[in-house]
Amino acid sequence: MKVRVEVMLKDGVLDPQGEAVRHALGTMGFAGVESVRQGKLIEMDVAEGTTDAEVKAMCERLLANTVIESYRIEM
Amino acid sequence: MKVRVEVMLKDGVLDPQGEAVRHALGTMGFAGVESVRQGKLIEMDVAEGTTDAEVKAMCERLLANTVIESYRIEM
Repeated sequence: MKVRVEVMLKDGVLDPQGEAVRHALGTMGFAGVESVRQGKLIEMDVAEGTTDAEVKAMCERLLANTVIESYRIEM
Repeated sequence: MKVRVEVMLKDGVLDPQGEAVRHALGTMGFAGVESVRQGKLIEMDVAEGTTDAEVKAMCERLLANTVIESYRIEM
C-alpha cells in the first residue's frame, strides 16, 4: 500500500533553503518568484492494513519535527 | 500564483536517506514498512502569467538534477 507524507515548515518558521532557491532563481533571470518554501515528500510502501493512526504515529515520532513542521498524509 | 514542484529520485537510483528512514521506522517498532523514498517538495509563489515553460526551465536548470531526479509540476 502506498502512503505519501508531505512535511513542510510551518508558516513563520524561517526557511533558509527555500530562500536560497528563491535567490538563485532570481540571479538566473527568473523574475517574479516571490517566495519559495522547501519541504520533504516521503513515499512509503507499507503493509496492507496499516492504519491511519500508525502512519500518524510515524509522522509524529520520526518523519516530522512537529515543533517547526506540519505534515499531511495521503493514503 | 502558487506552483508546486515535486522532485523525486528516479527508480533505480539508490536513496540512502529513504533507506535510513525505513530502517529507523523498523527499529522503532513500525513493522511492515517495505520501502521509503524521500524527495523534495517545493512550493513557490510566482507572478501571475508565469508560464508552464518557465517553471519547466526552473526545474531543468535548478530545482531538479535530471540525471538522477524526476520532477512533476502542479500549477
